[in-house]
Amino acid sequence: MSDATLLDADAIATLEGVTTATLTTILLKKGLRNIWFRGAMPLRNGQERVVGPAFTFRFVPAREDLATPASWSSPISTRAAIEAMPEGAFAVIDAMGVPDAGVFGDILCARMIRRKAAGLVTDGVIRDLSGVLDTGLPVWCRGASAPPSVAGLTFVGWQETIGCGGVCVIPGDTIVADRDGAVVIPAAFLGEVLEEAVEQERMEGWIVSEVERGEKLPGLYPMNEETKARYQAWKDEQG
Amino acid sequence: MSDATLLDADAIATLEGVTTATLTTILLKKGLRNIWFRGAMPLRNGQERVVGPAFTFRFVPAREDLATPASWSSPISTRAAIEAMPEGAFAVIDAMGVPDAGVFGDILCARMIRRKAAGLVTDGVIRDLSGVLDTGLPVWCRGASAPPSVAGLTFVGWQETIGCGGVCVIPGDTIVADRDGAVVIPAAFLGEVLEEAVEQERMEGWIVSEVERGEKLPGLYPMNEETKARYQAWKDEQG
Amino acid sequence: MSDATLLDADAIATLEGVTTATLTTILLKKGLRNIWFRGAMPLRNGQERVVGPAFTFRFVPAREDLATPASWSSPISTRAAIEAMPEGAFAVIDAMGVPDAGVFGDILCARMIRRKAAGLVTDGVIRDLSGVLDTGLPVWCRGASAPPSVAGLTFVGWQETIGCGGVCVIPGDTIVADRDGAVVIPAAFLGEVLEEAVEQERMEGWIVSEVERGEKLPGLYPMNEETKARYQAWKDEQG
Amino acid sequence: MSDATLLDADAIATLEGVTTATLTTILLKKGLRNIWFRGAMPLRNGQERVVGPAFTFRFVPAREDLATPASWSSPISTRAAIEAMPEGAFAVIDAMGVPDAGVFGDILCARMIRRKAAGLVTDGVIRDLSGVLDTGLPVWCRGASAPPSVAGLTFVGWQETIGCGGVCVIPGDTIVADRDGAVVIPAAFLGEVLEEAVEQERMEGWIVSEVERGEKLPGLYPMNEETKARYQAWKDEQG
Amino acid sequence: MSDATLLDADAIATLEGVTTATLTTILLKKGLRNIWFRGAMPLRNGQERVVGPAFTFRFVPAREDLATPASWSSPISTRAAIEAMPEGAFAVIDAMGVPDAGVFGDILCARMIRRKAAGLVTDGVIRDLSGVLDTGLPVWCRGASAPPSVAGLTFVGWQETIGCGGVCVIPGDTIVADRDGAVVIPAAFLGEVLEEAVEQERMEGWIVSEVERGEKLPGLYPMNEETKARYQAWKDEQG
Amino acid sequence: MSDATLLDADAIATLEGVTTATLTTILLKKGLRNIWFRGAMPLRNGQERVVGPAFTFRFVPAREDLATPASWSSPISTRAAIEAMPEGAFAVIDAMGVPDAGVFGDILCARMIRRKAAGLVTDGVIRDLSGVLDTGLPVWCRGASAPPSVAGLTFVGWQETIGCGGVCVIPGDTIVADRDGAVVIPAAFLGEVLEEAVEQERMEGWIVSEVERGEKLPGLYPMNEETKARYQAWKDEQG
Repeated sequence: MSDATLLDADAIATLEGVTTATLTTILLKKGLRNIWFRGAMPLRNGQERVVGPAFTFRFVPAREDLATPASWSSPISTRAAIEAMPEGAFAVIDAMGVPDAGVFGDILCARMIRRKAAGLVTDGVIRDLSGVLDTGLPVWCRGASAPPSVAGLTFVGWQETIGCGGVCVIPGDTIVADRDGAVVIPAAFLGEVLEEAVEQERMEGWIVSEVERGEKLPGLYPMNEETKARYQAWKDEQG
Repeated sequence: MSDATLLDADAIATLEGVTTATLTTILLKKGLRNIWFRGAMPLRNGQERVVGPAFTFRFVPAREDLATPASWSSPISTRAAIEAMPEGAFAVIDAMGVPDAGVFGDILCARMIRRKAAGLVTDGVIRDLSGVLDTGLPVWCRGASAPPSVAGLTFVGWQETIGCGGVCVIPGDTIVADRDGAVVIPAAFLGEVLEEAVEQERMEGWIVSEVERGEKLPGLYPMNEETKARYQAWKDEQG
Repeated sequence: MSDATLLDADAIATLEGVTTATLTTILLKKGLRNIWFRGAMPLRNGQERVVGPAFTFRFVPAREDLATPASWSSPISTRAAIEAMPEGAFAVIDAMGVPDAGVFGDILCARMIRRKAAGLVTDGVIRDLSGVLDTGLPVWCRGASAPPSVAGLTFVGWQETIGCGGVCVIPGDTIVADRDGAVVIPAAFLGEVLEEAVEQERMEGWIVSEVERGEKLPGLYPMNEETKARYQAWKDEQG
Repeated sequence: MSDATLLDADAIATLEGVTTATLTTILLKKGLRNIWFRGAMPLRNGQERVVGPAFTFRFVPAREDLATPASWSSPISTRAAIEAMPEGAFAVIDAMGVPDAGVFGDILCARMIRRKAAGLVTDGVIRDLSGVLDTGLPVWCRGASAPPSVAGLTFVGWQETIGCGGVCVIPGDTIVADRDGAVVIPAAFLGEVLEEAVEQERMEGWIVSEVERGEKLPGLYPMNEETKARYQAWKDEQG
Repeated sequence: MSDATLLDADAIATLEGVTTATLTTILLKKGLRNIWFRGAMPLRNGQERVVGPAFTFRFVPAREDLATPASWSSPISTRAAIEAMPEGAFAVIDAMGVPDAGVFGDILCARMIRRKAAGLVTDGVIRDLSGVLDTGLPVWCRGASAPPSVAGLTFVGWQETIGCGGVCVIPGDTIVADRDGAVVIPAAFLGEVLEEAVEQERMEGWIVSEVERGEKLPGLYPMNEETKARYQAWKDEQG
Repeated sequence: MSDATLLDADAIATLEGVTTATLTTILLKKGLRNIWFRGAMPLRNGQERVVGPAFTFRFVPAREDLATPASWSSPISTRAAIEAMPEGAFAVIDAMGVPDAGVFGDILCARMIRRKAAGLVTDGVIRDLSGVLDTGLPVWCRGASAPPSVAGLTFVGWQETIGCGGVCVIPGDTIVADRDGAVVIPAAFLGEVLEEAVEQERMEGWIVSEVERGEKLPGLYPMNEETKARYQAWKDEQG
């Protein structure tokens, strides 16, 4: 399963045209069923699709002697982690699903925009909802809350293997997120996925147009032999 | 409790003017407390009310040897079930509350629109959110996810008695859904409900107008004898 | 911890300019971590901030011999409680988190508007969503459902100490609610909070503008000595 | 529904011979479905049945300025409440289902034994498990935890109407608890329940003996006319 | 995946010597991860292992017009289903995880013993705990409750494909249950599992004895080449 | 908060005489409310108290390409971690609360006994319940399940800061576990806790004896001035 495919600009452009629904179908056929982040939905209505390499953050539950406003100045802080993010990175934050302590607010999200982060996905919540929306950062999360992260969480490090929304993420895996939520493409699968994704999208688009023309589902989706021939003919026509 | 009332065009037109809130009040007075689908809320902002007879689908948890893309071609498939739906039917889908496997996506919803389905209610989630909204199918559900149904569910049949969102549904029961969610009217209660619903709505509308005029709640809602007389007088006036 | 500060018009005007995120930070520094109502989010998109003194309502689980439509006429009813609310009060309703029985619908909310209530926060749900939105009452809750309160809840009294969304509320505590949800300011802390809140907001606004100018986070947020001096200079300039 | 029946020594002796399973069946037939305390199971293996009038305690969530060890000396404390319990009372404690703060430990349970309390039921947990078992107090709860009540709860009063484990309890209602958990008999239903319970137990005992003799279930349970006659004959024989 | 292997007396005897832990390991290697019933644990301390073919029961949520004591006499009743069970069958009951309505009590369990049922597994609870233990029926469930099934559930049929504890079960699949809970062996996998199970148990027993002798884990479990040779030698010795 | 106190043999002997209930009370007075592992209860009835320094293990959710039986031979494996445990260490395992994948079975627990581990605490479950009990290893967990860890979890490392049961644990913190569950004493608090614990236990023991003599709670627990004097006299007598 070694795969030297890089998430370069071409790969990103390709994945921006592939729905997360299609990606989960492709990966399921390869045996990966657990790649969609539970509870992480787009914060903004009509959010566009975003793609980037995972840059991970890890929180653990708060303990009063560790999780204090003073800890925000520690060298191991979310601030330091953000400064370590390369351009285009997709922040993936393990908040252990905590619903009542916002991992980031408007100030940190504003800084991520300045550092050209691709987006942010977490199984927790953000805070300063209005301010975060104003920054323009694309965010997938469980919602918003007023309390700061230190009310329930302690930050422990970045760029480790983490669990987020019930999914395992290794730094450098590819994250794709759209209106159906966010998925991880493990690094070793990126090449195969890129090859199959475009054809899958094209085929599903053709099927929708057939349904709109009045075709019945059995034999069409999935395609039987006759439909496959008809689809092939359409593709040949398109050139 | 035999009740020969049919859900014909007149009954549908009547119920389109009755809120699900009013329906739960009426059925509660008849001893039915458990008729609202937990977790099934409208997918679209400002969704209009929809009415139709229940057409049931049943899923069980996935087992890897059964829940495969290959199963989509089986004679017992969601595709075959959709082709069996009569015009005007309201799909009710028992997804056992699973939040991370979309029961239907844009292709199946597009086909349901072509077959003139009234709507879809499930205690699970849909996928291809953008595509599903584009089809125009009215949907009540727990939200959206990217993974397909086979990632977590196996389809086992249609038109059986099912549980959905903690509610028992028998094929042919009436489903009414609006911005407060979806309710089932058991077949044996349809006639009585139709009789009482219109008067209940009229009365609640009059009470709201009284509150807006500045009336206090005690004596008004519920009505005491004096208020009842005043309401009767208003009704007599309206003719 | 005696504090004679009153929630007068000036205090309300001040708090209308302070986010709940800032309030949780200030109270956290004073040792209060548990003041944000879990599950109570704004019913309306873009809801403005609302401030008022808590007026509490308490429900317990339904028992069929107690929770009947007949109970709505009891002298201990939500109707009587609403009539007891002073102008400007913020209704706080302990619904024990029940998600499938709406505590109030359009009629009761319309009456609260007539009585000039500031708003309503509950760990339960409302019903008659369209009607409630039409009344204009600002509401923070877990969502909507069709069934009435008596389907799952029995009202037992008002102006008691309650738990709501995992938070303790004493009548007369101050409630502030905005797009990040709702928080309680215990009465004994109001004076201190008012003093610190405005400066905190001013400082955070200055930090956001610094981030937008391209400043890095470490040393800026939280501020080191050099940044503090720069911020002081800016404040002196503003006069 | 006025019912002057008192829970005197005779009534207690009768109920000590009736299972909670039988009591829920009898009350269900009278329309009461919600009388079993969710999550409150016997702490001790093989716990005997216990009966007594409900004496209620109410907790709300902790707030750091209120829930302190100092509060244990307040006049409104669990200690004062225990001293107010009459002999034979059954403590019913609304702990809002909190699983990680023990409402009572060995000292308070030892005092309840001295004051001849009948037992204790809560939707929360106890602490000092070994010590509590040593006191001999019969307890129904969700389990044990080490932290004290003030770690998560604030005590607010006693002998109020409360919710506990999803059930409404009014001081003076009858509590019966055994290996299947605990149930409340509303005061107004006590007389009827006493009348029917003994006959119901006798009948179920006879049915079990019939099953052991090899009788099939249909026609036996529930009984058809032929079986009823046979049962009547057996009762006549017994005299 | 056709597999003609039958669950005959030899197969049962073999499986009685194989832990459910071993079975899940074997099936995992074949790609089946979802075969263990969540929430169904042995009711009795030290319960022996039990094996039998699945005989399924299906409940849906209660609706007040259907779930009545009268329904117990319906031809579609749990009583009729029990009379249809062949000797040695293992009852698998889909109770949709409902924790507060006991699916079966002492009378039905006593009848199952008379009909020589192997055991009972459910994702719900039983009632009449003392009585059920007295019958001697081996039960795996979520616990006990006092209320009868009709308080929360309606029985709809038997010998259908069901979901139970998050697992898909088809009538005739093999059920094995012990102190680690219960698992399903899909019919098509029975032959392969029987072949591999005995060798797996033998190997794990030898590894435990090696650990007790002081061997380190790496190289031992899983075995490296040297350990495999040593194990083979031991097996050859045993003959 | 620097504290050079070591968990030496004397400290362990002292803590073996202090209940976790007392430890949570002492730490609460120092501001630490979140130190009890949610869901981790003793596996064995009547389990004795166990004390040791935390040795942490971290799992993340399974991903099919990572969580395989083959991974058990990886250099980063639970096997390698166990071999790295010093004598007397207390394994603390972050299983993210997963209830259906056993982190360790009998083989690994047998090896931990050989390596003289003090005990094991996890927010997940174990497997091979019978075998684990046979090893004699003291275990605190959420229960048992048949499936192996790879069915739901991937092991990622040891001796990191982790979250477990909602509690933050740093390697070297002290773990104390008894019948009320398990607590962590942060390293910086160990010295203070040792000083206060013995006196606290002595005082609570004296109070229990006073209650047994018939003393009322108010004034006794907590002690007023008169009681304090009486207690001091008793202590002076004891010498």
